[in-house]
Amino acid sequence: MITNNILSFAKSILCEVLEPGCIAVDATAGNGYDTVYLSRQAGVEGRVFAFDIQEEAIEQTRQRLNEECMPENWTLFHSGHENMLSLIPEEFHGKVNIVMFNLGFLPGSDKSIVTRPETTLKALADSLEILATGAMICIAIYAGHPGGAEEDAAVREYCTALDYHYVRVIQSEMLNKPGYPIRLLFLTKL
Amino acid sequence: MITNNILSFAKSILCEVLEPGCIAVDATAGNGYDTVYLSRQAGVEGRVFAFDIQEEAIEQTRQRLNEECMPENWTLFHSGHENMLSLIPEEFHGKVNIVMFNLGFLPGSDKSIVTRPETTLKALADSLEILATGAMICIAIYAGHPGGAEEDAAVREYCTALDYHYVRVIQSEMLNKPGYPIRLLFLTKL
Repeated sequence: MITNNILSFAKSILCEVLEPGCIAVDATAGNGYDTVYLSRQAGVEGRVFAFDIQEEAIEQTRQRLNEECMPENWTLFHSGHENMLSLIPEEFHGKVNIVMFNLGFLPGSDKSIVTRPETTLKALADSLEILATGAMICIAIYAGHPGGAEEDAAVREYCTALDYHYVRVIQSEMLNKPGYPIRLLFLTKL
Repeated sequence: MITNNILSFAKSILCEVLEPGCIAVDATAGNGYDTVYLSRQAGVEGRVFAFDIQEEAIEQTRQRLNEECMPENWTLFHSGHENMLSLIPEEFHGKVNIVMFNLGFLPGSDKSIVTRPETTLKALADSLEILATGAMICIAIYAGHPGGAEEDAAVREYCTALDYHYVRVIQSEMLNKPGYPIRLLFLTKL
C-alpha cells in the first residue's frame, strides 16, 4: 500500500530514478533522513551532494550517515542550495539524476529558519541546469509555517511557467488530509 | 522516465496494485485499452469486470480483448457503472483490488455521451463498498468537454469529504500542460 501516505507515494516514484551509481543532490539535508536514503540508493559507485544553511542540520546529517554505515559517496556543504552550481564539481553538471527539496523548516528546530522563495527559485533554476536529460527534481512543500503559503505559491508559479517541451511538472497532494497540506512536485527534464 | 506523462505516471502507481490473480473493475471500458491492460495484469487466476453504457464501446472492448488474445478472465456489462453493486457477483464484494474510472467521453465518438456526476458519485460509493482493504480506485478526469468542469468539481468535492481515517485520496495533475487538464485521483481504502 503506497498511496495511503504522500511520502511513501513520493518514494515509490523516486525508486524508478534512483539506481546504483546515480548522482543525487539533497538540496535541504535537514535531519539527514533523505541524505541517508539517497546515499544508500546511490551505493559505492554513486555520489550524493547535500546542502543545508544550518550547522546543526549538517552535523545531524553527518552523524546519521556514519551511524547507518553509509558508503563514503557523500559530500556535505554547510551552505544554501542556491550555491549548488558553484559548489558541485563541474564534472557532474548535466549528469545529476535527482535533486530533492524539502521546503519549510527543520522539524524539531527553530521554526524561524526556513527556506525562502528567492533562494529556492535560484536553486530550482540551477537544479535544472545540472540535471541530466530525463532526470528529476522532487520537491516536498510543507506550508504550515509563517511565510509557507507564499513560498508554496512562488514555487508553483515558477513551475507552472516552465516550458512543457523542456520540463514536465506533476503536482500531487493528499486531497482529504486534515491539518496543514503537504504538496509534492515532480519535475522531469526532457 | 515515468513522470514525463501523466498516464505513464498513473500506470507506475497501478503496477504496485495489479498482481496476477487480482480482481479488477474497469468502470468505463471505452475503447477497451484499460480493460486489456487489466486483463493482462490479472492473468488466468484473476478476474476483470468492465462496464460501459455504449454498445459501441462494449463491442470495441470485446474485439480488442480477443485480438490481443487475453485470457478468458473478463466479463463485459453493457450497463452503467452505477449498477456495479448488483452486477458484480456477491462473492467478489470486499475482494476487489482496483477500480478504474476514465471520466469524460469516449475518444473518437459522440461527445454528447459522457459520464455524469450523479451516476459517477453512486459508482464511486459502490466501488468503496466492493474494494478490499488496502485496495485502490484510480480516476482519470478529462474535463475538456461541456459539463466536464462540473463533473470534475463534483468528484473532487466528494473525495475531499471522505473520512481520512477510512480513505486516503491523492490528487495528481500536470501543472504546466497546455490545453485541457487531465487530473488523476488515487483513493486507497484503509
